[in-house]
Amino acid sequence: MNTTDRPLDVVILAAGQGTRMKSALPKVLHPVAGRPMVAWAVKAAQELGARQVVVVTGHGADRVEAALAGSGVTFARQEQQLGTGHAFLCGVDALHAHGDADVLVLYGDTPLLQTRTLRSLLADHQGQASALTILSGELPDATGYGRIIRDASGHVERIVEQKDATPAERAVREFNSGVYVMDARAPELARQITNDNASGEYYLTDLLGLYRAEGAQASAFKLDNPDEVQGANDRLGLADLGALLQSRINMAHMAAGVSIQAPETVFIEDTVVLGRDVTLEPGVILRGQTRVAAGVTVGAYSVVSDCVLDEGVTVKPHSVLDGARVGAGSDIGPFARLRPGTVLGEAVHIGNFVETKNAVLAPGVKAGHLAYLGDVTIGAETNVGAGTIVANFDGVNKHPSRIGAGVFIGSNSTIIAPREIGDAAFIAAGSAVHDHVPEGAMAVARGKQRNLEGWSKRYWGGLKDKVDVKLPWLSAWLGRQD
Amino acid sequence: MNTTDRPLDVVILAAGQGTRMKSALPKVLHPVAGRPMVAWAVKAAQELGARQVVVVTGHGADRVEAALAGSGVTFARQEQQLGTGHAFLCGVDALHAHGDADVLVLYGDTPLLQTRTLRSLLADHQGQASALTILSGELPDATGYGRIIRDASGHVERIVEQKDATPAERAVREFNSGVYVMDARAPELARQITNDNASGEYYLTDLLGLYRAEGAQASAFKLDNPDEVQGANDRLGLADLGALLQSRINMAHMAAGVSIQAPETVFIEDTVVLGRDVTLEPGVILRGQTRVAAGVTVGAYSVVSDCVLDEGVTVKPHSVLDGARVGAGSDIGPFARLRPGTVLGEAVHIGNFVETKNAVLAPGVKAGHLAYLGDVTIGAETNVGAGTIVANFDGVNKHPSRIGAGVFIGSNSTIIAPREIGDAAFIAAGSAVHDHVPEGAMAVARGKQRNLEGWSKRYWGGLKDKVDVKLPWLSAWLGRQD
Amino acid sequence: MNTTDRPLDVVILAAGQGTRMKSALPKVLHPVAGRPMVAWAVKAAQELGARQVVVVTGHGADRVEAALAGSGVTFARQEQQLGTGHAFLCGVDALHAHGDADVLVLYGDTPLLQTRTLRSLLADHQGQASALTILSGELPDATGYGRIIRDASGHVERIVEQKDATPAERAVREFNSGVYVMDARAPELARQITNDNASGEYYLTDLLGLYRAEGAQASAFKLDNPDEVQGANDRLGLADLGALLQSRINMAHMAAGVSIQAPETVFIEDTVVLGRDVTLEPGVILRGQTRVAAGVTVGAYSVVSDCVLDEGVTVKPHSVLDGARVGAGSDIGPFARLRPGTVLGEAVHIGNFVETKNAVLAPGVKAGHLAYLGDVTIGAETNVGAGTIVANFDGVNKHPSRIGAGVFIGSNSTIIAPREIGDAAFIAAGSAVHDHVPEGAMAVARGKQRNLEGWSKRYWGGLKDKVDVKLPWLSAWLGRQD
Repeated sequence: MNTTDRPLDVVILAAGQGTRMKSALPKVLHPVAGRPMVAWAVKAAQELGARQVVVVTGHGADRVEAALAGSGVTFARQEQQLGTGHAFLCGVDALHAHGDADVLVLYGDTPLLQTRTLRSLLADHQGQASALTILSGELPDATGYGRIIRDASGHVERIVEQKDATPAERAVREFNSGVYVMDARAPELARQITNDNASGEYYLTDLLGLYRAEGAQASAFKLDNPDEVQGANDRLGLADLGALLQSRINMAHMAAGVSIQAPETVFIEDTVVLGRDVTLEPGVILRGQTRVAAGVTVGAYSVVSDCVLDEGVTVKPHSVLDGARVGAGSDIGPFARLRPGTVLGEAVHIGNFVETKNAVLAPGVKAGHLAYLGDVTIGAETNVGAGTIVANFDGVNKHPSRIGAGVFIGSNSTIIAPREIGDAAFIAAGSAVHDHVPEGAMAVARGKQRNLEGWSKRYWGGLKDKVDVKLPWLSAWLGRQD
Repeated sequence: MNTTDRPLDVVILAAGQGTRMKSALPKVLHPVAGRPMVAWAVKAAQELGARQVVVVTGHGADRVEAALAGSGVTFARQEQQLGTGHAFLCGVDALHAHGDADVLVLYGDTPLLQTRTLRSLLADHQGQASALTILSGELPDATGYGRIIRDASGHVERIVEQKDATPAERAVREFNSGVYVMDARAPELARQITNDNASGEYYLTDLLGLYRAEGAQASAFKLDNPDEVQGANDRLGLADLGALLQSRINMAHMAAGVSIQAPETVFIEDTVVLGRDVTLEPGVILRGQTRVAAGVTVGAYSVVSDCVLDEGVTVKPHSVLDGARVGAGSDIGPFARLRPGTVLGEAVHIGNFVETKNAVLAPGVKAGHLAYLGDVTIGAETNVGAGTIVANFDGVNKHPSRIGAGVFIGSNSTIIAPREIGDAAFIAAGSAVHDHVPEGAMAVARGKQRNLEGWSKRYWGGLKDKVDVKLPWLSAWLGRQD
Repeated sequence: MNTTDRPLDVVILAAGQGTRMKSALPKVLHPVAGRPMVAWAVKAAQELGARQVVVVTGHGADRVEAALAGSGVTFARQEQQLGTGHAFLCGVDALHAHGDADVLVLYGDTPLLQTRTLRSLLADHQGQASALTILSGELPDATGYGRIIRDASGHVERIVEQKDATPAERAVREFNSGVYVMDARAPELARQITNDNASGEYYLTDLLGLYRAEGAQASAFKLDNPDEVQGANDRLGLADLGALLQSRINMAHMAAGVSIQAPETVFIEDTVVLGRDVTLEPGVILRGQTRVAAGVTVGAYSVVSDCVLDEGVTVKPHSVLDGARVGAGSDIGPFARLRPGTVLGEAVHIGNFVETKNAVLAPGVKAGHLAYLGDVTIGAETNVGAGTIVANFDGVNKHPSRIGAGVFIGSNSTIIAPREIGDAAFIAAGSAVHDHVPEGAMAVARGKQRNLEGWSKRYWGGLKDKVDVKLPWLSAWLGRQD
């Protein structure tokens, strides 16, 4: 929600190429902590309650616009890269209205900038009654940055670039982040920016002079932590931003009562919601719309995306869960794979090397070992034996099966879909179930056993040379049989 | 063993709430490096050879006492939180005897304090012939801590709290850790502590003044590393302590000849014993009573709890081992799961997606792929084919099976327990073995094959529309059949 | 390639014991970033285009020589450890020729020294027209090292060891790394080194005095980064070197356009080749002759050794790939295991809990779940059902199978090798295929289903006591049947 009294429009500059990324992907689409860099700026702008958010695209515009499709932003194309002033002008041209709103300029490659910092900037802008407020920062040595030159009253007089700075100006530690909030005149004043300078570019910083030429007051709001406006120009920078952002996310969860044994090995996207007393073991990765209830433990190296884990769930190490809902008290893994459409009731057990997909399991179902449960509903307390496969595919289509409550499925059984297994039915181990099974019936669908006595002696005898070398016990047994 | 001549009693203060933990779990039960914080203090006290260890509980007393049940400590309840002096008094009230022993005060939330540091403290206490010896530390800036004020002779005159300190006292860098060892008068003197102060609390630090009022000498023993008395007040602090403690454990193993490629990604509980030339790949987690013999390699991301790994064992990446004994030269994983009751002889091979539980495997057994071996003994050199399931469960009970030596179990077989398979037997692939198999016999328990020629043309013809789109090769084949 | 005009011989000193390693493995064989330490020195020497590389071995000589067998180096045994001068002499005695080449001395335990640094050293050596050039470095405090003492002209006058240094000399920050390049006189001059000193050892540093006694000029070439000559004396040092080397490798990949989200958790051997826009998730390990094409993503915790991954391949988390070639657009994992001899065509899908070995899969093959494919070729678009086992082993030998194109293998089938399955064949789920299957035929090899109505009531009735407690739903069902 916009905390100022005036409407706010936001222009996000996201047209740059990012050559040093050495990538086919436009720079602003490189992800940081699970989100393209530009999406962090859009998120912040929307959290501010902006009336309109314009994203100025250029390099890779099609891909950037596709990535942000559906986010509610307006796109403005900057066909030629003529400078930041020109990019901003492209942006304001796409505003539905102007002259009645503050305008905030953000960047597509500074994902660490927090909404709460921007709220403070906007509040300061209003409080100071300035026409233009620069978000500035302070560094022990600001070499390379444009410096903020303040007048005696503390207002901003001008920004001086590194190459134009006098020795005294170079000693200034306050730098220009490039983020500005301006009053409603900004769109019109931006038309007066010229490219009458050494490099022939239109500079957004010229707006400051244009405002001051009108007699307007400019101020600067200093960041607590200059890291927030750090950008990424290469992959190393990207990794650095990711680490900072991830650390911020992890520390917030820890402050709220989540135990993370080794925070620097745990990766949590900012969309994830975690309850109190959640425990995350080393190497856990949580993504997307994942919601984890209080008291849940997620075991080492598990990767959980878009899942809901209810209270008291235990996810053991090395599990990969995606798009599943897991009922309270369930016990998952290790080496479990839950795929989209999995809905587990309370106290379900899914053990090692078990995969579920479009599988709705009622409370108390157990599938402990080596199974594939696809396109199936299973009733309460059914026991799925080791090696069970619900064969849902005919080569072209998937078919559903329905297995009742209290069913016992013997090991290594195959349920050939579409199949109905009644409540309390019993499937003999090793059966290939190709017909329905009524309630309370036992189905047997396997061959009958024959024992051929003395067979092994002949068999192994024929392989004797190799047996002698490889299998001393068996070789001795063969000797005893002679 | 207590290294001083006098008996030693230890009082561990563990009654605090730890509000900033934001947890339903009492603060001192939060684990650090695999052990609740308070258990580290108990361990240190017991390693000192204390005559009696009293743990003073308060917040969450039931849970704290339950967690330490069986550890041999005495519990004292502090029903109201009236200050550290009061907590100590609760503790000494639970001593079986007093007046004849030194008393050491420890805390339930400082798990880094080492037994050898405490031994040095006790030795110094005796050597100095002091009545009370404070464990102190030195920091570049001790702001926030109580400072140690020494007299001209170097003895401790008083402790001054931050809020009461003069500028000169604030410049003192030596701080009070709160850990004290005191002579046999401490329990009686503690009764003289009053709450006649601004906050109305009973302060343990008042003991110093009481001793000095008796003309007794107090000294301070300075820690080499002030980290040792670091406590945890929130989850971030907990993670920090865990990292320091883990680093200490890992460095000790490395100094003793263990190779750890990336120590900051490896988590070893302090109960684990590792031989020389053990190699731990990145991400390895070792827990509980695990003992690893010389020369063993544990592969990346494997999690090993309460296991014994004999010489020359190789555990490949992504294995989860729990409560297993693995014989010399065995080769486990990747993606192996050994569960409690697994006992493997020498040179056993357990491969990928294989689970064992209550499984005793003689030397040379091989189970390389996709198998479940539960409640079973298997003789030497038996080969367990891919997909073998030992079906041990009837829906309510587990049943044991016995498989002889030199047996060949064909792939995708099911052994339906309780079952006896004689030595050198041979199970045809795909069999569901529901009867015993004599020594040397071949068992076949599967259907006979029928080939229905021309069937596929009709089948795929019926699905032709979709085949055309999804399966171009098959679509072309169908065309050729027309 | 040797960038100087003169031939170059290299002597690598690798005879030391490394007692503090506490290891049965000779010190120089301890691996750093996937390569024994001494192999890094050999690699650098060979990249310089050395005419001959001599490795001087001593402690564990047999193992060191075995480890470097086939690398093209010459070995010289130093039977007794009489000092570095003696070791060097052993080395030059093994030169095929001398008197016509520069000689470079390297060490078996400094794996961070880069070839490009050595090239600069050699270029400087030639440019300065020095007889001996020392590789030196500068540290804020060089205590413990031999210091470089230069004369007024900047040439090196002598090296003074810590114990012999005056206070002024101890203040010198330039230290001797022990790496030297010398002109063709070095082998002969080395014979004049004596052990006429306090410790009775032959010191290689004495060569400097011998050169200067001949009136020759010595210089020193200062390293940019003194880390490069850091050695490892214990396992902690080994881990530190590994971290530095891994960071160097990872940063080079990132600079070239590889995205690594958490570089400190990713381990890439220096033999691995990565294309642009490769993405490596946390915990990835890449080893050996692995080549990854542009745009490939390798998922979290996957371990890939000696594999070729073509463009557009996706490897999902928790996969272990070894010796496989994966065709463009294929989709592997999670929990996939590809073993040597696996060759996958384009757009192959290998899903969870699937193992392949000596398996050649044509484009479009899908094996999504719980399967073992060993010693088999499979034609285009064939669908391998969940739970399929290609049973390739008869107890002693492995046999090959051939499965055609467009085949549908039903779930839980067993293909008993050697077997031929014709194109477009169809295998009914649950079949144990023990005979060949002609093109276009359906094979059924399983039992026929019988349903025994009412069976469950009797079965569960017999287990009723336990069912009551454990399975309330089933207990209620039993009640309804009465």
